[in-house]
Amino acid sequence: MISKKMSVNIQSGSLIRKMFEEGARLKELFGEDNVYDFSIGNPDLEPPEEVRSALCSLVDSPKPGMHGYMPNSGYLSTRTAVARSVSTPLTTVGPDAICMTVGAAGAMNAVLKSVLDPGDEVILLAPFFMEYVNYIENHCGVPVIVQTDPDTFLPNPDRIRSAITARTKAIIINSPNNPSGTLYSADTLRELNDLILSADHLIHVISDEPYRELVYDGRTAPATMDYIQNLIVCYSFSKSLSLPGERIGYSAISPSHEDFELLSKAVVLANRILGSVNAPALFQKVIELSIQAKVDVPNYEKRRNMLYEIVTGAGFTAHKPDGAFYLFVRSPGDDMEFCKRCADERLLVVPGSAFSCPGYFRLAFCASEKTIIGSEKAFRTMGKAYGLCD
Amino acid sequence: MISKKMSVNIQSGSLIRKMFEEGARLKELFGEDNVYDFSIGNPDLEPPEEVRSALCSLVDSPKPGMHGYMPNSGYLSTRTAVARSVSTPLTTVGPDAICMTVGAAGAMNAVLKSVLDPGDEVILLAPFFMEYVNYIENHCGVPVIVQTDPDTFLPNPDRIRSAITARTKAIIINSPNNPSGTLYSADTLRELNDLILSADHLIHVISDEPYRELVYDGRTAPATMDYIQNLIVCYSFSKSLSLPGERIGYSAISPSHEDFELLSKAVVLANRILGSVNAPALFQKVIELSIQAKVDVPNYEKRRNMLYEIVTGAGFTAHKPDGAFYLFVRSPGDDMEFCKRCADERLLVVPGSAFSCPGYFRLAFCASEKTIIGSEKAFRTMGKAYGLCD
Repeated sequence: MISKKMSVNIQSGSLIRKMFEEGARLKELFGEDNVYDFSIGNPDLEPPEEVRSALCSLVDSPKPGMHGYMPNSGYLSTRTAVARSVSTPLTTVGPDAICMTVGAAGAMNAVLKSVLDPGDEVILLAPFFMEYVNYIENHCGVPVIVQTDPDTFLPNPDRIRSAITARTKAIIINSPNNPSGTLYSADTLRELNDLILSADHLIHVISDEPYRELVYDGRTAPATMDYIQNLIVCYSFSKSLSLPGERIGYSAISPSHEDFELLSKAVVLANRILGSVNAPALFQKVIELSIQAKVDVPNYEKRRNMLYEIVTGAGFTAHKPDGAFYLFVRSPGDDMEFCKRCADERLLVVPGSAFSCPGYFRLAFCASEKTIIGSEKAFRTMGKAYGLCD
Repeated sequence: MISKKMSVNIQSGSLIRKMFEEGARLKELFGEDNVYDFSIGNPDLEPPEEVRSALCSLVDSPKPGMHGYMPNSGYLSTRTAVARSVSTPLTTVGPDAICMTVGAAGAMNAVLKSVLDPGDEVILLAPFFMEYVNYIENHCGVPVIVQTDPDTFLPNPDRIRSAITARTKAIIINSPNNPSGTLYSADTLRELNDLILSADHLIHVISDEPYRELVYDGRTAPATMDYIQNLIVCYSFSKSLSLPGERIGYSAISPSHEDFELLSKAVVLANRILGSVNAPALFQKVIELSIQAKVDVPNYEKRRNMLYEIVTGAGFTAHKPDGAFYLFVRSPGDDMEFCKRCADERLLVVPGSAFSCPGYFRLAFCASEKTIIGSEKAFRTMGKAYGLCD
């Protein structure tokens, strides 16, 4: 007597869950230090000092009503701080563009609920974060999967153009990308915008940007707001401030969005009726006080380099990520099979199939340096087993 | 280019929102002290001392990873504490029955997503919290509204029986009730259970219990777990610990539920894919440390008595609430019209129509004592205007 859809979801989700359960079993059996868990994007770094001190100052000098309701969109003061942080020299964003949400996942669900009628299509660029399919289907939308260019993982304009139909309501972009680490340049964004605007109806561009600040090699992510007209940004402080458990993020609608006024009302309403009601009160205030803070990006860059060296040193072919904290590696042979064999070496990785991109596997390098260093032997064993190294 | 459903929602929600906006305007114009706002259930009392000290101790001695991901269902230690608090001498609840959620609204959405196929019906007992309709429709369910008995607002078994069809998937109960304050006795729960079990298929009983501890006159709410077989409790600490802005609650599935195993998996999955992912990490730990705490219930009882005296003293007929913090009052004449006229007296109240129960209006007595005392003149003015008092 549970829903048919959820019965299917429970079945289909079980393979990956079994792998995670296997990980827990291995850790119990061999000790935490002897299992190399690159499976999940749970930042190993602690939140920056500014976050800690904001939290302490708020809690140690409590204000009346600080845990009470506020407008469903969030505190005006928080939204003002966020709007300022999103604004660029070219694009001024006001607090009415912002809705504070339960992470980026909460933002995406509020946005998709706001725009989708049953049967509406949403274009996804593979490889993509697997939950997007669930988010779209939550609101009776239909995911339309378009492959990016192999190796660069950049959007392919022709393929996108042929995927657009009269039912296309939105496209989801995610740069820096999970799982590939690819960063879209200003030119890529400009080209994407032209392509989307050339359709004969409005298509929302939903930009999932939890990794915006995690960019390496001295580069920065171009502000999507400056390049894409009908844009809705979904953001989370999970990665940039190492707060994934606290569920704090926001949606930001571009001032140039043709449907700005109605859409901004709809997102706040959707945020309420989907059950979030509002983003957690205390962490809204924490964000307001520490919005300039950033996790230790050079530290992630160091880990990226270490893991990239280890993995390519073992003979694997990997796309060196521009940002985010994932390494997307070409799988020798079937990726599901490969990942199962990795588990025998106490190496936990996620198959590319889980991102609609078979033939690869993903490593989250937000793991500890100790885990990264310790994993070298296991990668070499796997490399040898597949004839990739001696 | 927003969804058709949301366009309608934005339109239909606008009357009540206009009233709230009118309230803000009035407060700006006449000062906060001269507006008697009984419109919203935002607890005026601060969280109990135990909550404050738990929060301080957690924040002042930070532990690594305390803001990171945990299992989607919540920390095992938190679920164990919650399970213990839900258990009764007759019913032992384990941590696997619990999913920590983003408030009761988050819990209800996860539960409804878990059980509803498109077109499935959910019975609502009017008067009810208006958001239930949205929560059901979020998951393509169909709300079926059944009136309770007038004056007592207790469920009418015959009416419920005739509303049950082959598509009935669930019934939502809420005791103590928002807006009526009615408390269901053990006998009422037993009778309801028999009725539901007599249907020829499984019907889930979803019990929304945010007001469980707010019961007056020396009574206590009977544990629904002891009386109802296929029960799912949705709970929030918003009211019992005055934490509505922090979005912390849980779902608890009765160990006697026929679909316990599959349902408990489905709820955790739904909690994840609806975008909550998990309940906020820090407040899970706060709850774990302060689960025995309770807001000052006698204080709410005092306010109930004060407001009841004022309102009935002005000639109105009200059901004296057994619990929760709302007074549901018979409206002299059309309730929408009456509430608009109240606003002229700077008295903000919500029409019964908003709870599918026209002919009444609701007052939230979680307002300050000052507001309650100050409102007497306005209620007398309204009473006189409608010929209810001299």
